[in-house]
Amino acid sequence: MNASVPPAAGRIAALRHAMAAQGLAACLVPSADPHLSEYLPARWQGRRWLTGFKGSVGTLVVTADFAGLWVDGRYWAQAEQELAGSGIELMRTTSSGSTAHLDWLAAHMPAGGVLGVDGAVLGLAAGRALEAALAARSAVLRTDLDLLEAVWTDRPLPPADPIYEHLPPAAVVSRADKLALLRAEMAAAGADWHFVATLDDLAWLFNLRGGDVRYNPVFLGYALIGRDEATLFVADGKIDAALAARLAADGVRLAPYTAAAAALAGLPPDGAILLDPRRVTLGLVQAIPAALRRIEAINPSTLAKSRKTAGEVAHIRTAMEQDGAALCEFFCWLETALARGESLTELTIDAEITAARARRPGFVSPSFATIAGFNANGALPHYRATEASHAAIEGDGLLLVDSGGQYLGGTTDITRTVAVGAVSEAQREDFTRVLKGMIQLTLARFPRGTRSPQLDALARAPIWAAGIDYGHGTGHGVGYFLNVHEGPQVISPHAAAEPQTAMEPGMVTSNEPGIYRPGRWGVRIENLLLNVPAGSGEFGEFLGFETLTLCPIDTRCVVAGLLDAREREWLDGYHAEVRRRLSPLLAGEALAWLQRATEPL
Amino acid sequence: MNASVPPAAGRIAALRHAMAAQGLAACLVPSADPHLSEYLPARWQGRRWLTGFKGSVGTLVVTADFAGLWVDGRYWAQAEQELAGSGIELMRTTSSGSTAHLDWLAAHMPAGGVLGVDGAVLGLAAGRALEAALAARSAVLRTDLDLLEAVWTDRPLPPADPIYEHLPPAAVVSRADKLALLRAEMAAAGADWHFVATLDDLAWLFNLRGGDVRYNPVFLGYALIGRDEATLFVADGKIDAALAARLAADGVRLAPYTAAAAALAGLPPDGAILLDPRRVTLGLVQAIPAALRRIEAINPSTLAKSRKTAGEVAHIRTAMEQDGAALCEFFCWLETALARGESLTELTIDAEITAARARRPGFVSPSFATIAGFNANGALPHYRATEASHAAIEGDGLLLVDSGGQYLGGTTDITRTVAVGAVSEAQREDFTRVLKGMIQLTLARFPRGTRSPQLDALARAPIWAAGIDYGHGTGHGVGYFLNVHEGPQVISPHAAAEPQTAMEPGMVTSNEPGIYRPGRWGVRIENLLLNVPAGSGEFGEFLGFETLTLCPIDTRCVVAGLLDAREREWLDGYHAEVRRRLSPLLAGEALAWLQRATEPL
Repeated sequence: MNASVPPAAGRIAALRHAMAAQGLAACLVPSADPHLSEYLPARWQGRRWLTGFKGSVGTLVVTADFAGLWVDGRYWAQAEQELAGSGIELMRTTSSGSTAHLDWLAAHMPAGGVLGVDGAVLGLAAGRALEAALAARSAVLRTDLDLLEAVWTDRPLPPADPIYEHLPPAAVVSRADKLALLRAEMAAAGADWHFVATLDDLAWLFNLRGGDVRYNPVFLGYALIGRDEATLFVADGKIDAALAARLAADGVRLAPYTAAAAALAGLPPDGAILLDPRRVTLGLVQAIPAALRRIEAINPSTLAKSRKTAGEVAHIRTAMEQDGAALCEFFCWLETALARGESLTELTIDAEITAARARRPGFVSPSFATIAGFNANGALPHYRATEASHAAIEGDGLLLVDSGGQYLGGTTDITRTVAVGAVSEAQREDFTRVLKGMIQLTLARFPRGTRSPQLDALARAPIWAAGIDYGHGTGHGVGYFLNVHEGPQVISPHAAAEPQTAMEPGMVTSNEPGIYRPGRWGVRIENLLLNVPAGSGEFGEFLGFETLTLCPIDTRCVVAGLLDAREREWLDGYHAEVRRRLSPLLAGEALAWLQRATEPL
Repeated sequence: MNASVPPAAGRIAALRHAMAAQGLAACLVPSADPHLSEYLPARWQGRRWLTGFKGSVGTLVVTADFAGLWVDGRYWAQAEQELAGSGIELMRTTSSGSTAHLDWLAAHMPAGGVLGVDGAVLGLAAGRALEAALAARSAVLRTDLDLLEAVWTDRPLPPADPIYEHLPPAAVVSRADKLALLRAEMAAAGADWHFVATLDDLAWLFNLRGGDVRYNPVFLGYALIGRDEATLFVADGKIDAALAARLAADGVRLAPYTAAAAALAGLPPDGAILLDPRRVTLGLVQAIPAALRRIEAINPSTLAKSRKTAGEVAHIRTAMEQDGAALCEFFCWLETALARGESLTELTIDAEITAARARRPGFVSPSFATIAGFNANGALPHYRATEASHAAIEGDGLLLVDSGGQYLGGTTDITRTVAVGAVSEAQREDFTRVLKGMIQLTLARFPRGTRSPQLDALARAPIWAAGIDYGHGTGHGVGYFLNVHEGPQVISPHAAAEPQTAMEPGMVTSNEPGIYRPGRWGVRIENLLLNVPAGSGEFGEFLGFETLTLCPIDTRCVVAGLLDAREREWLDGYHAEVRRRLSPLLAGEALAWLQRATEPL
């Protein structure tokens, strides 16, 4: 029996064989698809297939005598386990944006050799960084081949879910208005063309949604927008005739998904094309005629969709009320079930919380896989209970529940940590420190245009003061019935303080500090915040936050003496607002639970 | 009379003539010298000579029909005035590290044209960014010419001040130990050679000091360090025979300043050279044999010198006591002189403060040009009083004094804002907000390795809360009897959160928030902080700050009710410490002033 040798060993050997046949000294496999998505359709999970590592981010480099997978701190423990026996070396990095593999290539790439990467899944900016690293070894990059085709015999096909329309009233801004807005930005930048490869930008721009990526209501496609024309490249059969006609009425014509590169190659050379070097692949850029001038900038749609309109915000507030009411029903059920001594597991939580959301109007699907971690499992920030491995919720401790919903009128993402049985003083202190961090960021006032990473330390300071830190960012942007992780803003110490991370009115961002005690418990509290005007004067415009998420915070876990007067006032005020807005949507036991849970401290 | 046409117009015309002769479509003149210094010797102030703009940072781009100077927010008003009538367009950027001129070149560079920049003053990293911008226009970079030679007929020679030794006891770590430490870092990086072009690194590494750059005790030179040999390239006559012999005893041989490029060109090709792409010019890198492998990383000396040793910290504490005592004598004199009705100006302040420092043991020179700004002038963060333009200190208001000294045992940098006559409630509120920001950063506790830019918002939050912001960074690193601005750490929203900005024990950083009311008054309070251990546990090592600067903060300007309990406690504790440490160094009226000024709130 060779059950202890994982399939990865044979797959890497097959890859080396294919490399040799192509004369490659090395091969790099990123965690990426042709749209540089966060969540990859199965067809593009080649790095996972090759290595056996199931984490979402990792970069594989293989040479004749080395195979290494660069993995960030979230996944070290998991990767160690999953790579065991594969012959693939675990290369530890501290952040997901690490460039450590570039340093390795600059030092170890066989001199003068060829590194192969599938240009169809390699970002333009990433490709440039690779070329610079290879230059140190007089090595070159080759991007015109996909070695996976040769070795991955049962490779899945691209997903083929139908595309549907995001309709009014939830779709507040029409497709025609969005295209007009985009064209105004193109004109301002001096561009005749704009090419979009990212799925959230596509979905937003055309008011279309799909089911090609789990939890993200997007579809595979590309768009090429000219001054007077727009082409949407999607696979045949995804758009029915009626929708095609409505798109045509807005000046959008359809073309096959596979025709995008050829369309770029056929552009007239006497113009300029706007594209985002971090959101389009090298393979597609190489198709663009050399004479066509390239204007590199963030996709205008990325900025535009991050700034929710007043109409969208009204829908989001409604969605948040429904979502909060669903959570109240869930937490009421949880308390009752625990009190009854029912046998519950982390999997029960997921099922129950999704069922509660599904009863609410406008609900479409969860916005990500529910994280329900009891005690030690709560200490794993990216834990996910499975049939094979999950904990029973029994005894005393803290239950961390991070979940969210897709509604036609918004996307939610909320974490609550709640007491199960008796909670220790140490657990309550950790809970209160996290709460303080969450409140301090909520209360922040800052100049419009402040780069989002700058705000990270405000949430961390009360936690740092106790000699504690957490290994993830404090917040991420959230889409409007779109991806639960959407930029450009991100409140993280690792994010670059670039102009596009400027905080602007209408942006929705999560606020989710945490404390994780490995093997013991985890605390995270997460609300979504809206950037709202907070006065202006001789120092310009200022912004503050409106809390969008509506759900009680478990005051049984709060050490009141650790809160200052302003923090207490915020907490009581928040609970009064939660009670006011959710009461009309609840009845019976759930309403009684809400009233108890929102009592002042 | 054509007195209204500034000389810049003719000089730009001459430059265009020289450009045409060389077939250049455009020319770029940075504010830089061959060592990429912050303060430039006169010989390399070509951008200033060409434009008439006297600010320290600006980038000039000239084409046949355009001349533009990119200038950051600190200098907009000044540049507008100084460029008037020159035909040079003022291009406004928001930060000194802006790449807006690259965007301009990418959009406007004549297609296929040649951009000329003197490679001898162009950083390697900056050169690469230029090449990338030009690629968008199929344009190319030419770096093998210095157009200023052709047009600047009375160009100054390089400075020729003698070099002297920084001796024990103030020089705590010997030259031999520093070279051994550097070679260990070289070995760890796999480097056979290391090239140093930056003057503070050179001065630190060899325990040498000079007078080639005003306020910075550095000298022009380069160094090439091998595994067993080290060559220092300095102009003839700067090092006397006795010092040369002492250097030789430590294995350091001398070579002419102009021989550095040839020495690089003559390196054996079968090795590796470590160099910092941001601290060495393209011109010198181009001299390196192509076969020699280049390892790009921050200069090891930059990190090493930022982390002061315990012995150096002991000297710094002594220097801070002497500096604080000098300031007490100055502020005591100021109060007495004002009370007597003496006629004082901002220039008097500068003279008196320098005289007070000069009476102190170990004093060498000011560490930068004193900023003394009364009322409206205090609102200009980089104001400098001149014979031609300065204010009298009379009536009521706030006087902002930012000054520092070079001592054999450390470099100081302190800002105090003090009351002159009556101070308004609005002025006291601003003062207290700045004080709160300064204290909040002082009290911060954070994980070792936190990137310095992350901490910026902690000082800003109490100021933002009032709808106010300041347009400069909160803090910069400070050298040890070296440059008053030394990295790698910098507490600024504009700094990149790169690994080299990690906060490490022993670093000295300024903490200087401010509030500036244009035309009315300015408040800035600045102390220097030392990174000190603050416990360690399951979340790793934490750091806190020890305040190094010792000088009373004007409590007459404090609105006590705006401080929280922790801030009050810090202020009273700080004043008790200032009194304890400075009293032994003062006598008579100055001692009595210290005692009054350090009373609890």
